[in-house]
Amino acid sequence: MKNKNTNLKKILKSIETKKPLIHHITNNVTVNDCANITLNWGALPVMAPGKEEADQMVVSSSALVLNIGTPNKNQLEAMIKAGNKANDLGIPVILDPVGVGATEYRTEIAKKLLAELELSLIKGNKGEISILAGESAKVKGVESVGEYKSIKKSADKLAENQDCIVVVSGVQDLISDGVEFFNLNSGNYLMGEVVGTGCMLGSTLGVFMSVAKELELDYLEAAKIAIYCYNFAGEKAALNAETPGAYKIDFMDNIYKMKSDSINEEMEGMI
Amino acid sequence: MKNKNTNLKKILKSIETKKPLIHHITNNVTVNDCANITLNWGALPVMAPGKEEADQMVVSSSALVLNIGTPNKNQLEAMIKAGNKANDLGIPVILDPVGVGATEYRTEIAKKLLAELELSLIKGNKGEISILAGESAKVKGVESVGEYKSIKKSADKLAENQDCIVVVSGVQDLISDGVEFFNLNSGNYLMGEVVGTGCMLGSTLGVFMSVAKELELDYLEAAKIAIYCYNFAGEKAALNAETPGAYKIDFMDNIYKMKSDSINEEMEGMI
Amino acid sequence: MKNKNTNLKKILKSIETKKPLIHHITNNVTVNDCANITLNWGALPVMAPGKEEADQMVVSSSALVLNIGTPNKNQLEAMIKAGNKANDLGIPVILDPVGVGATEYRTEIAKKLLAELELSLIKGNKGEISILAGESAKVKGVESVGEYKSIKKSADKLAENQDCIVVVSGVQDLISDGVEFFNLNSGNYLMGEVVGTGCMLGSTLGVFMSVAKELELDYLEAAKIAIYCYNFAGEKAALNAETPGAYKIDFMDNIYKMKSDSINEEMEGMI
Repeated sequence: MKNKNTNLKKILKSIETKKPLIHHITNNVTVNDCANITLNWGALPVMAPGKEEADQMVVSSSALVLNIGTPNKNQLEAMIKAGNKANDLGIPVILDPVGVGATEYRTEIAKKLLAELELSLIKGNKGEISILAGESAKVKGVESVGEYKSIKKSADKLAENQDCIVVVSGVQDLISDGVEFFNLNSGNYLMGEVVGTGCMLGSTLGVFMSVAKELELDYLEAAKIAIYCYNFAGEKAALNAETPGAYKIDFMDNIYKMKSDSINEEMEGMI
Repeated sequence: MKNKNTNLKKILKSIETKKPLIHHITNNVTVNDCANITLNWGALPVMAPGKEEADQMVVSSSALVLNIGTPNKNQLEAMIKAGNKANDLGIPVILDPVGVGATEYRTEIAKKLLAELELSLIKGNKGEISILAGESAKVKGVESVGEYKSIKKSADKLAENQDCIVVVSGVQDLISDGVEFFNLNSGNYLMGEVVGTGCMLGSTLGVFMSVAKELELDYLEAAKIAIYCYNFAGEKAALNAETPGAYKIDFMDNIYKMKSDSINEEMEGMI
Repeated sequence: MKNKNTNLKKILKSIETKKPLIHHITNNVTVNDCANITLNWGALPVMAPGKEEADQMVVSSSALVLNIGTPNKNQLEAMIKAGNKANDLGIPVILDPVGVGATEYRTEIAKKLLAELELSLIKGNKGEISILAGESAKVKGVESVGEYKSIKKSADKLAENQDCIVVVSGVQDLISDGVEFFNLNSGNYLMGEVVGTGCMLGSTLGVFMSVAKELELDYLEAAKIAIYCYNFAGEKAALNAETPGAYKIDFMDNIYKMKSDSINEEMEGMI
């Protein structure tokens, strides 16, 4: 496991040095959290949802995070323009299809994004991923409800169809690139008691994947390390706090403290 | 008072079990707080402000919270579509007419909502409620200023006119259904030092009223219990914190800790 | 320095007594922070971004804060309507040209605001101020990057061109009115690790400048005192907290505690 820890150090070091700009077109519920978590990692957040500038902002960015938590017509247009520009420039595009399946409108928007853009990674809960894989699922608002016995199959299928990485977030996070599949047993239930931890994972994936290419790491490896680190911060926070408000602050501050030169045995044990 | 405490336990139990979806069309200032407080109570928040999906999201929801804190044309359209759907399905609709009276535009919007929808509850400060009752009032931004000697009369009148419950929030919360009127002496002044406590009370009313019908409680009873619980959390937080930032976290975490099986003598004494 | 401390007490006293309404048309990333910091100072925040009411809301306001962090067409229209009304009424207008230089769209919007409105103060980072002064600069997202050896000259030039005060925020804050120039050596690096401290400084400037006229203070003096107080709260918070999440709460709570009757020797020493 030494190798992964070395890669983790390399990624953190690269984020700290390069301070990559992570462009978000995202919902207005958790937009502040996404900006802060990006800054906590040492990267620079920018939120430019306007269709007039969404694509131009991509030019100086190192990753693009699209999140359809509060979708509308103008936002979709901005996402497609920015996404196309990111594809042209070879910048990773992360999609969080929040609430897909809850309304026809969200499903339609997500499908349009899947059709028009080359996504690097799709991150959703079990219901959202199942819907996008063409299975039936039950999404209540932005939460996945019901049983998903074939979630591995759905993740693999979506990854294969879209030729991208698929992350299924939940009590247990899963990751697939259509060939390999991993079950990441980490995190803490309190992460689910805070609004925005799903969205912030999207930002985190953007941050880590933004430096992958220059380190000659593939996106799958960068994404796995991102999730490990994110969940590690979540586990540690649960040692200090038992309620969501206090927990959220401790969780985000743990991320701030996770620097390339502070990765220690504790963390090594984890990975 | 035993009865009320039993109803409180029943409501909390029902929220925890059912996890009702509380749909919000709300302002972009406190939207994150509203989502978190809803989750803290054990319910599921969803914010879907787009007119393309606002009504469809109502179908799986158990309450609809409308808040005009940052109004615009599209939002009004979404509110009317979602409100009509909620009325068709018999789902409670809560309106927070933020800043009514501060501009003609807000007053016009609120009056349109009053005319087009069957509201279950209107919650506002003294100025806002007075304006909607047809009295003169002074609203400065989103704050009520001046004296309101006949606020009881205004609340009763509005409740009667709209055939709904009216909550007047402030240092002292008042509630009327046009027939009965209650003066709820609870809460803490620090609640007024945190942006969003008014909006979060709206969400809280939505959460509690969402399970009223199945428990055969009327909305007035559910709303009274909601306010008691909300203020109780606010009083308790004042024992730990003296400044708004620390207070807000403690307040919201108190709500998270208020579970059906943890209601104890302390709380019993209150109700 | 006694004089300045007297002015500080006068300003704080006036804010506490008058509770001036500070109208914001701002981005949706830090809008909640801006509202809370305004309330922490003892003023009343209002956010009314809709072009239908933006100007009417100015009538009861004592300052107008414009922030283009997430710009769009409707917002620009609202800003110009509200700004014109504020100019007519002699209310101070503060502009935070977030991200100017990062995209052509932002630069175009800022230039339109500079051309159409009489601004009282422009606050930006080194890159943003340089761009508006007609110099070349590098803005990465909403962050200034690169060296700015002639930043004093740029600030003076912009102040002169626009006949307004210019604040350059950064590790070191600078202020110029085109005639006088001050270097304000205060603050803490942790302020840069929290999203929104730039925007909240804009709100703070609005709060302090809103009571300047009635105290017969010029805007330059009010702005300098605002920055001193803001940075003082930031320095104090660094004594208690080392991570952004905990720091932000302590910082904002320090502002809440800074009342006219609590200004003591500690603070006197600073100013």
